[in-house]
Amino acid sequence: MSEHTQVKMTEMNYDADRPAAENPVKIMDLSLRDGHQSLFATRGRTEDMIPVAELMDEVGFWAVETWGGATFDTMHRFLNEDPWERIRTLKRYFKKTPFSMLLRAQNLVGYRNYADDLAEAFVERAAENGMDIFRTFDALNDYRNFETVVKGIKKAGKHFQGCICYTMTEPRLGGDVYNLDYFINKAKDLESMGADSICIKDMAGLIAPYDAYNLIKALKENVKAPIHLHSHFTSGMSPMSHLKAIEAGVDIIDTCMTPYAYRTSHAAIEPLVMTLIGTNRDTGFNIRKLAEINEIFEKEIMPKYKHLLDDSKVSIIDINVLLHQTPGGMLSNLVNQLREMDALDKIGEVYKELPRVRRDLGQIPLVTPTSQIVGIQTVNNVLFDDENERYKMITGQVKDLCYGLYGKTAVPINADVQKKALKGYARGEEPITCRPAEVLEPELEKAKEEIGDLAKDIDDQVLYAIYPVTGKKFLKWKYGVETPPKEVLPRTMEDVKKDDELVKKA
Amino acid sequence: MSEHTQVKMTEMNYDADRPAAENPVKIMDLSLRDGHQSLFATRGRTEDMIPVAELMDEVGFWAVETWGGATFDTMHRFLNEDPWERIRTLKRYFKKTPFSMLLRAQNLVGYRNYADDLAEAFVERAAENGMDIFRTFDALNDYRNFETVVKGIKKAGKHFQGCICYTMTEPRLGGDVYNLDYFINKAKDLESMGADSICIKDMAGLIAPYDAYNLIKALKENVKAPIHLHSHFTSGMSPMSHLKAIEAGVDIIDTCMTPYAYRTSHAAIEPLVMTLIGTNRDTGFNIRKLAEINEIFEKEIMPKYKHLLDDSKVSIIDINVLLHQTPGGMLSNLVNQLREMDALDKIGEVYKELPRVRRDLGQIPLVTPTSQIVGIQTVNNVLFDDENERYKMITGQVKDLCYGLYGKTAVPINADVQKKALKGYARGEEPITCRPAEVLEPELEKAKEEIGDLAKDIDDQVLYAIYPVTGKKFLKWKYGVETPPKEVLPRTMEDVKKDDELVKKA
Ligand SMILES: [Co+2]
Ligand SMILES: [Co+2]
Repeated sequence: MSEHTQVKMTEMNYDADRPAAENPVKIMDLSLRDGHQSLFATRGRTEDMIPVAELMDEVGFWAVETWGGATFDTMHRFLNEDPWERIRTLKRYFKKTPFSMLLRAQNLVGYRNYADDLAEAFVERAAENGMDIFRTFDALNDYRNFETVVKGIKKAGKHFQGCICYTMTEPRLGGDVYNLDYFINKAKDLESMGADSICIKDMAGLIAPYDAYNLIKALKENVKAPIHLHSHFTSGMSPMSHLKAIEAGVDIIDTCMTPYAYRTSHAAIEPLVMTLIGTNRDTGFNIRKLAEINEIFEKEIMPKYKHLLDDSKVSIIDINVLLHQTPGGMLSNLVNQLREMDALDKIGEVYKELPRVRRDLGQIPLVTPTSQIVGIQTVNNVLFDDENERYKMITGQVKDLCYGLYGKTAVPINADVQKKALKGYARGEEPITCRPAEVLEPELEKAKEEIGDLAKDIDDQVLYAIYPVTGKKFLKWKYGVETPPKEVLPRTMEDVKKDDELVKKA
Repeated sequence: MSEHTQVKMTEMNYDADRPAAENPVKIMDLSLRDGHQSLFATRGRTEDMIPVAELMDEVGFWAVETWGGATFDTMHRFLNEDPWERIRTLKRYFKKTPFSMLLRAQNLVGYRNYADDLAEAFVERAAENGMDIFRTFDALNDYRNFETVVKGIKKAGKHFQGCICYTMTEPRLGGDVYNLDYFINKAKDLESMGADSICIKDMAGLIAPYDAYNLIKALKENVKAPIHLHSHFTSGMSPMSHLKAIEAGVDIIDTCMTPYAYRTSHAAIEPLVMTLIGTNRDTGFNIRKLAEINEIFEKEIMPKYKHLLDDSKVSIIDINVLLHQTPGGMLSNLVNQLREMDALDKIGEVYKELPRVRRDLGQIPLVTPTSQIVGIQTVNNVLFDDENERYKMITGQVKDLCYGLYGKTAVPINADVQKKALKGYARGEEPITCRPAEVLEPELEKAKEEIGDLAKDIDDQVLYAIYPVTGKKFLKWKYGVETPPKEVLPRTMEDVKKDDELVKKA
């Protein structure tokens, strides 16, 4: 580790308007999307973003992530909020800072592959409503699943950020599958698709500091597009990984404002700003301005969301990530599943079976939805298999995966498992090798017909097409056909006070 | 920053019994002292340390901090526990790992300078009861306050760790007072006093990563004793500062087990273990063993302490540290003080006055008790001064400081302030320049007489001498003269369940 030459000490200057550094680290703020998705069940409301929006616009962020991921779903389902309206509303306050969204490639903002016509319409509408940067990822890193949306992003003249999901088979970067070459090749693939920037998407907080250093260094040597690091705090390594990535020359880092930071979210921006002052990578941010924003968040916004924080443990990191190289939530889901089936004593077997199932299924990354696919099948194997037969109960999702519906796996799926899974499978016993969406029929026109007049414009129609059941319900609330239930109303400061008093009395 | 040559990649080996690294980073675990002092108001009970003690003894820590700081006070005052007994009890479970204590130099484990005879007796008894490493600090970094206790430590053949309190007058390392030379000179002073190791004691989490790098590098070049870094997480910088300190060649790092980590405590050990695997500084620790300990802590111990966590904010870092270079607790104390006086609108003036008062008082480090001394005088100045007169209300502690009772300040005290403070001061108007304890009369024999037969041995007598009021009360509980009140009884898992049910009903 003898060449940390990317960070050089310069002159110390603490002024808010100090001259710009030679090569400032660019920062994307995630508070308004991944922040509340990680800590508060994606329940952040637009009205609770407005009080800080103009101040945040002044910080100098490279971008703010405001949309996509689970927000589209939770907004219309649980918050009685029109997802499209959030972009337009926030755009009125953020006059300078570009918006970024998390796009699940062909899954858009849902949980299955949608047909190309719907994917095209979705991207067009997101761009039209004000989205600037489309951070695009696929759970299998199969970039054929990018093709349709990237065409749309490019057509709209917007920024295409291509993600490589960071995953491992060993405790650290390396091994036969997810080694340095894998990531370099993926980055080259993205560059040849026209990526305006490339993101290492470390959903689980797996990337260790020196691996981040080596990886970013290799990427900077092999591709020209700016490199962006997204690494959750979950394992506790990310502040160190951020710094080593910066020392390797990373261009952009993801952070959150302090109240939305740490735990399963991301490291905070403020310590990093202080760290880089006096170097050629100084962010140039004014810490006092950040403090002002935090104070508003803490005083006016956090009381409404605090009850959503997971306080089941005192620890704010999850070292299972370090032990099993799995996303934080995945193992607790498995534990809950076993508990429900009164089989918690099998947890040891589950830990052993999990890497075997993952290997059988082509060493796929463990990320939504693949972590669930591998997890549930693992539990099934432990509960139902015997010495004579493995994979006695194969889930529908595993069958879809074996058929090729999610895309190409990192290594080939175990041939026996695949054959067994596809025996009598409705779409056919022979797996496909084409781009998955090619086997899907167009679906937007049919959706338009179904929803009819309840949808007043194309945004309504796309919403319904992606989420037919909850989308329809939402449109009824939106247009006064039905009264929204109490559960979707915002929690007010009045509610907070009432609850606090009740607890105090207890 | 081009010479990060101290960390070299070696071979990856994930085995629990992998060969030792060339120069392993040594780790001191603070969970059982600073961990619960920082997070749970120092309320950790011996009975809640025993379930993990034998497992912790197997980890391979350089030492475990088990005693000193505020524990001596809280144990006898709030927990009805004999402080001396904790050392002896834990020693039966920790058979290999040395014990470390935090010793406030001539303040021992209290809040004032004690006379030399008492200091000698205290150190002798601590060593006799099982203490191995005496981490010694003085709020003013005036090492004349070390003289008596160091003599005792050396006489007992124990490890003398000398601390340099890390403090700043600028947002980062540097300026006229607390610059690199200051710390190098202090380290040389400690070495010439016979320090077996030297600790940078960053109580407030002020040290920034590249400052840690430069400081540790300079210390390694200038002194031979092992260098130890103690940096609280409070500002969010410490995980990065740890790593840069390691890259500069630091010998020992302080961490906590995960449930006692982060917030105003220290970064956790587990992410650091994973980070260093495959390098010449690998700790050699087995993460699975650490996970096992954490699970016991979370399941059996944390439920009893959780209610003591400060949950007034969602943020787990305090960026005031970055804005004002003051310990996290200091500013919230000031805010509370102003609120009680219905003068919260003066907080801006307090922020401005604070560095002026600190300068007047000799740019002393801000650490217990000097942070309180500076803080209260600042509030007094803001509330009572007018354009005609400054320092209208000088506190008794400021008078003592001006007299020289705490020791020598970093720069001379403002002569006018000093003169005003000492006008009519009982001990005399002329400040002393000698070692502060030299003006103190011996006090142990007098204390022995006072407490008489209620003290059964020298440990009881020393306890009483340090804490006469609460010490006497404790001895009455200890020997059945009085019944301890309900408040000092331990919180049981039964209590936890009852409280949880009440809150659920609310
Ligand atoms: Co994320
Ligand atoms: Co401490």
